[in-house]
Amino acid sequence: MARHGLDGLIGTTPENVQYLCALESGQFLLNRYKAQVFALVAAGRTDRPVVVTTVNDVSAVFQQCPPQTCAIYYGRFVRYVNPAVELTAHELLVKRHVVDDAGRNPPDAFNGLLAGLEAAGLIRGRVGYDERAFDHSHLPALTEKLPHLRLVPAWDIIREVRAVKTAEEVRRLSASVALTERGIQAAVAIAKTGCTEEDLAREFRTEVSRGGGYAIFEGITFSRRAAVGDLPIRDGILREGDLIRFDIGCKVDGYCSDIARLFAYKGGLDPRIHAIYAAMKAGEEAGMAIMKPGTTARMVFEETCRAVREAGVSDYRRTHVGHAIGLEMYEIPLLAETDDTPLEVGMVFEIETPYYELGLTGIQLEDTVVVQPDGVEMLTRSSRDIGHIG
Amino acid sequence: MARHGLDGLIGTTPENVQYLCALESGQFLLNRYKAQVFALVAAGRTDRPVVVTTVNDVSAVFQQCPPQTCAIYYGRFVRYVNPAVELTAHELLVKRHVVDDAGRNPPDAFNGLLAGLEAAGLIRGRVGYDERAFDHSHLPALTEKLPHLRLVPAWDIIREVRAVKTAEEVRRLSASVALTERGIQAAVAIAKTGCTEEDLAREFRTEVSRGGGYAIFEGITFSRRAAVGDLPIRDGILREGDLIRFDIGCKVDGYCSDIARLFAYKGGLDPRIHAIYAAMKAGEEAGMAIMKPGTTARMVFEETCRAVREAGVSDYRRTHVGHAIGLEMYEIPLLAETDDTPLEVGMVFEIETPYYELGLTGIQLEDTVVVQPDGVEMLTRSSRDIGHIG
Repeated sequence: MARHGLDGLIGTTPENVQYLCALESGQFLLNRYKAQVFALVAAGRTDRPVVVTTVNDVSAVFQQCPPQTCAIYYGRFVRYVNPAVELTAHELLVKRHVVDDAGRNPPDAFNGLLAGLEAAGLIRGRVGYDERAFDHSHLPALTEKLPHLRLVPAWDIIREVRAVKTAEEVRRLSASVALTERGIQAAVAIAKTGCTEEDLAREFRTEVSRGGGYAIFEGITFSRRAAVGDLPIRDGILREGDLIRFDIGCKVDGYCSDIARLFAYKGGLDPRIHAIYAAMKAGEEAGMAIMKPGTTARMVFEETCRAVREAGVSDYRRTHVGHAIGLEMYEIPLLAETDDTPLEVGMVFEIETPYYELGLTGIQLEDTVVVQPDGVEMLTRSSRDIGHIG
Repeated sequence: MARHGLDGLIGTTPENVQYLCALESGQFLLNRYKAQVFALVAAGRTDRPVVVTTVNDVSAVFQQCPPQTCAIYYGRFVRYVNPAVELTAHELLVKRHVVDDAGRNPPDAFNGLLAGLEAAGLIRGRVGYDERAFDHSHLPALTEKLPHLRLVPAWDIIREVRAVKTAEEVRRLSASVALTERGIQAAVAIAKTGCTEEDLAREFRTEVSRGGGYAIFEGITFSRRAAVGDLPIRDGILREGDLIRFDIGCKVDGYCSDIARLFAYKGGLDPRIHAIYAAMKAGEEAGMAIMKPGTTARMVFEETCRAVREAGVSDYRRTHVGHAIGLEMYEIPLLAETDDTPLEVGMVFEIETPYYELGLTGIQLEDTVVVQPDGVEMLTRSSRDIGHIG
């Protein structure tokens, strides 16, 4: 953040709070738009976050945040204490913050944030905040209380900081991809004539749940329906000779996956589909082949499209051929003509070459790769050819 | 909205868009904070929504929105057309909006919104918008382009509109409760000494997935851990004599559930737990008994707390004893001292009496009820006593 001239950052989305201090607050589940949780870091001290959240979150902070985290709890919550037993360290911590400090904690999120800014040493200077998910009604009062603080929108900067993943993030992304692949296999295993797209989606979701993840995106479409766009009502019925398109993902420990695979159900695919698929695969592979530190997102886009055209789909056009992925499905950089960001070691991308033809089908391959010093390592492990069922 | 002096509303959160026009846009899944989908309704014409979304959503609008919906699609997306076959009505619709109109669609969300306001007849007057989830950068240009339009924050007004549920909403809420109850039973069925809270959570999530829902909140805690607050890391290990607390919910067709139940694992609960539970149940029942049109949320709160105190927990204090539920977990009214809203037929509430004692456990009962002309109908069907396992 120093290169952006910022003295600190305030994260307020579930993803930015998790990124900056590891907390997954239950407040976001219960009250998505009223939840006010702030993760603050000062430049040069990102390993010592300050978290501001409600007194309900004492245990979650205890379980998840680094031990050197400074926590400010606001608001009130009624908990009683059993006088007849010795409390554990965890219970004593909850007692201290919720019961003993009940009169001392800041009464509300705004006052919590003020205390947090002070604790983080951010009562002056330029501090970036998530302008897309910040209660803007706080701004005038913050300016009044902290006249030397300049709050600047930093949504894009936090995204930029998040673009290069740590080893632990890559491990989670890899686990997320593996679970999505397992979910696809489970869905494929139950495919039979007459079943619906929804049947396969439920099987995918069930397998992902069993494996400890959450299904977040369940694009499963049959044959011509695969060309028309997202279908929230998955009532397509499987017939012999259908193509099954999966464009699908889950979350594991907060990290997303988003991959695409095709399967031919009981043979008989239009030969054009195989020819187009071969071109899409050639494009994806050509794009991957040039991905390394220093190559720009735009170069990957251009090379991918060029190779698809050369491989036979001569009028291939796309707005992008992939995107970074992490705590969110679409992160930056975007593999597009509009993005000149140079790739860096540790960036994780989806690379994809979708082709949608109304009256034919949707043909797509999408893989997850991590940028390494001399190329990419693929996190997807399953076959990249059209699978055959039955 | 007329009683708030508004000529129309613009919904932009996933929940408000679904509420106003039935669309569940994939844009929210892919790009949570950049997605720009607008559902517009004019006062007196709420059955004729206008939806503004990307050209990716043509099929989703086709599947989900009422047929009289006016849809404005913005942006570009590449789809090809197979000239060798006759297109279906659905494919022709996609072709028209995505391919044929590619040069005519508004280029971006802002211009889409302008076209949408015009289509909805909302280029002048007072129009409410979701100030918590609206791209504020649009405001100056909107004011410039539409000088007779006054945009006013209407977050709370849309929530107020959503408080009284339709029959279809009650049906979905009821299905959501039923699936959560089924998930609890599945989790209970695998409980055995040595298993973890996470094992039960996965079983819950798996069963909910199998039943067509999504687990959204998985509070499962054992014995003393049930008193300390939300635990995102569910590593508690089940022992004989433990209490298992479920405070848990899922989503079905967009609608949330959130109920609480207790189970004694292989007997031996502290007799105090039974005594306190009896008081909590008495309180919940007393609160439910007075719920009917005209009773205020505050009256329900006071009666519930009074009855708990009378039943033996003489110092019982809470900030609320429940909340409305719908597309979100916490909706309004809140059953609290601070809320004087009179109950209306069709409001759906969670009513709950939690008691957390550090060094003892968390004791809680939470049920879902819908307000009817002469009282409440309970949507939860499972036993409201402490269950026994093993």
